[in-house]
Amino acid sequence: MSDYPSIVLEQAVNQMASLPGVGRRTALRLVLHLLRQPEAEVEAFSNAFSRLKKEVVYCRECHNISDTELCPICASTHRDHSTICVVENVQDVMSIENTGQYNGVYHVLGGVISPMEGIGPKDIEIDSLIERISKGDISELILALPTTMEGDTTNFYIYRRIENQKSQIKNQKCDLRITQIARGVAVGNQIEYTDEITLGRSIVNRIEFKG
Amino acid sequence: MSDYPSIVLEQAVNQMASLPGVGRRTALRLVLHLLRQPEAEVEAFSNAFSRLKKEVVYCRECHNISDTELCPICASTHRDHSTICVVENVQDVMSIENTGQYNGVYHVLGGVISPMEGIGPKDIEIDSLIERISKGDISELILALPTTMEGDTTNFYIYRRIENQKSQIKNQKCDLRITQIARGVAVGNQIEYTDEITLGRSIVNRIEFKG
Repeated sequence: MSDYPSIVLEQAVNQMASLPGVGRRTALRLVLHLLRQPEAEVEAFSNAFSRLKKEVVYCRECHNISDTELCPICASTHRDHSTICVVENVQDVMSIENTGQYNGVYHVLGGVISPMEGIGPKDIEIDSLIERISKGDISELILALPTTMEGDTTNFYIYRRIENQKSQIKNQKCDLRITQIARGVAVGNQIEYTDEITLGRSIVNRIEFKG
Repeated sequence: MSDYPSIVLEQAVNQMASLPGVGRRTALRLVLHLLRQPEAEVEAFSNAFSRLKKEVVYCRECHNISDTELCPICASTHRDHSTICVVENVQDVMSIENTGQYNGVYHVLGGVISPMEGIGPKDIEIDSLIERISKGDISELILALPTTMEGDTTNFYIYRRIENQKSQIKNQKCDLRITQIARGVAVGNQIEYTDEITLGRSIVNRIEFKG
């Protein structure tokens, strides 16, 4: 006999435990919680995931998650479409949007180049980024990838691709700026507890004090 | 505009975050994980919970979760149906089953008496337990409720109900034993690190050494 008193329960636990970071004991606790909810709520829970895969699409422009062919950010006329912020994933878009400090558009790579994990430039949305730039009218590309070896590699790869293709790219403005987000001591952090690489960078990349 | 680039995504995150102990950030991570899975797997995930509430029933005898009217344990002819182990919930049945040390049947209360949380004797399966005992043929009732004030209250309430009703209960064997599981120093634990209440109990309730 199985450990579980019910096969249906066991299947639900198996599914819940298939989520990353959810162990079998937690999965059982969550499933038993669902079982105590009214049927309509469990149905809503189930439907949300069923719809998810069927209805969510990726924006044809920036590859962000969207309900429509063009995501709300790319479709907005209030955004600056000449500035593209390159990010690794959807969460990063949401984080930057939450700051309220950015009014350009995005390009979601869907990962970073990682030879260790077998992720090459063709596995992420770099070609489509180059294509967007080649259409012209882009004045700034902000690289906002993680500060890891993989992030740095990807930054460097994108930079090289753009430099190499500048001649082929028709209508390419010569003044396309490629920038990257500032790295330094986090706001509110003590100097003495900041790691030395971050602190070192914050000194090298110091900026003019505006009193 | 919502924080989420997609309403369908947001609904899935809301549902995931409705689970106890799952925050919005974790919920988003889990939903994005699902979104990366093949459609068939997401469908299987969704279906498992849809079936859960529709198909899982509670055993009419012991109130354990079951796929059938009578759970596999209550339906088994290999189990000792004269011994009932009273537990708080389904997880406890599974834990005791996993020990392989118990061959009787169970009674799942679905909670313990807790005036603080407004849970009275009528809110849990005590009446049905008394009814099972009143049918006779029960030789032992093992109380395996948590060692908390609520568990102790529930133990005492059940004991009193049985004592009070002994006259009304027809066919009641006079030799119904009411026992409770042993409390003491956990196997593998150091004496010096055991809390004093547990250690005190383990001395008071010491048993004969069988060399």
